[in-house]
Amino acid sequence: MSEYKIIEIKKSVYENNDKEAEILRGELKEKKTFLLNLMSSPGSGKTTTLKRTIAALKEEFSIGVMEADIDSDVDAKTISETGAKTIQLHTGGMCHLDAGMTRQGLDNIEAGEFDFVVLENVGNLVCPAEFDTGASKNAMILSVPEGDDKPLKYPLMFTISDCVLINKIDTKSVFDFDDKAVVQRIKKLNPNAEVFFISAKTGEGMEGWFNWLRKQINDWNK
Amino acid sequence: MSEYKIIEIKKSVYENNDKEAEILRGELKEKKTFLLNLMSSPGSGKTTTLKRTIAALKEEFSIGVMEADIDSDVDAKTISETGAKTIQLHTGGMCHLDAGMTRQGLDNIEAGEFDFVVLENVGNLVCPAEFDTGASKNAMILSVPEGDDKPLKYPLMFTISDCVLINKIDTKSVFDFDDKAVVQRIKKLNPNAEVFFISAKTGEGMEGWFNWLRKQINDWNK
Repeated sequence: MSEYKIIEIKKSVYENNDKEAEILRGELKEKKTFLLNLMSSPGSGKTTTLKRTIAALKEEFSIGVMEADIDSDVDAKTISETGAKTIQLHTGGMCHLDAGMTRQGLDNIEAGEFDFVVLENVGNLVCPAEFDTGASKNAMILSVPEGDDKPLKYPLMFTISDCVLINKIDTKSVFDFDDKAVVQRIKKLNPNAEVFFISAKTGEGMEGWFNWLRKQINDWNK
Repeated sequence: MSEYKIIEIKKSVYENNDKEAEILRGELKEKKTFLLNLMSSPGSGKTTTLKRTIAALKEEFSIGVMEADIDSDVDAKTISETGAKTIQLHTGGMCHLDAGMTRQGLDNIEAGEFDFVVLENVGNLVCPAEFDTGASKNAMILSVPEGDDKPLKYPLMFTISDCVLINKIDTKSVFDFDDKAVVQRIKKLNPNAEVFFISAKTGEGMEGWFNWLRKQINDWNK
């Protein structure tokens, strides 16, 4: 059973995004809905990671997913096959989502019905880092093929992420990637960031990430 | 001998970017300077591709390189070691360069002195596609690890690129990547796009790209 709505997101009318994000976060807290903002470059494995995450957590939590993309609905199709309620958000060329845009998605998916909602943000390491979506927590994925120098080049994204997943560790034999260096670079920007090394393809190393998420969701929804 | 200036780019004052881009392109044509706008996701191999390209073409053409980044100067350091004149452009958080911003870089590098100038754009498949930089030609890199579905998800980038390099073909054994499907998806958006399969790491398949570039530079500078 794979079905999902496609929502065309409108530009926000709010002038103060930070204020709007705080209001949205407060409402989500009250509804006991944990919102995760998941960010990364194009092709680093957000959708595959999400698929495994839903499979691992769907007996414990009710889960909704908002797939944001410039165009297409390939990700919404994939995710809806997990059985999680899914909607596709089209940003109409915009490179990120702010709190007002996120609210349009949450209203459409009826977020209050879920314990856990994921916003899969637009594939981009620059713009999404600059706009608070109102999420409870931010997570990002850096994949091994992208290189261990990315925290140097996109520092804001690593600074605002509560959790960094280093994905595609199954491909390490064909890339030069320095685990120790990448962790040092992340921690220098953001000493509190949790870092997990995973392969969303094989499932390796994902238990730490699931446990981190379980704790965040349970703490938020208390 | 590795040295380079770091230029802090200011926001453009021009209201009509398309018009400004046309003016800039006309000036470059008159000076016989071919400007290539090179775009891609973070970590797809722009800098490694550029290093090999400079090594292959530096006896034939005088080459200047402008490395654009949100922050850091790791790429400018790498490229300056090739001997090509290099400057680092810092965009101050902005996710792309428009024609006015490109002009600031060209003035700084004294572009008129070169046959061939490369603008390595910010790593991003969304915003750079929306702004004409005034370049003679646009090229983009899609790397195998990012997946063959990217033309579906970031169609504008593939539509405006004259040449698409599929990089990291040396890693194909560890990824599911459909060569035929990706070419079909690119050609559907942009029937005139040239597509080359390369490995900037091993050098495989790069001769076709070098020849394409040679022809573009020679035609422009006639």
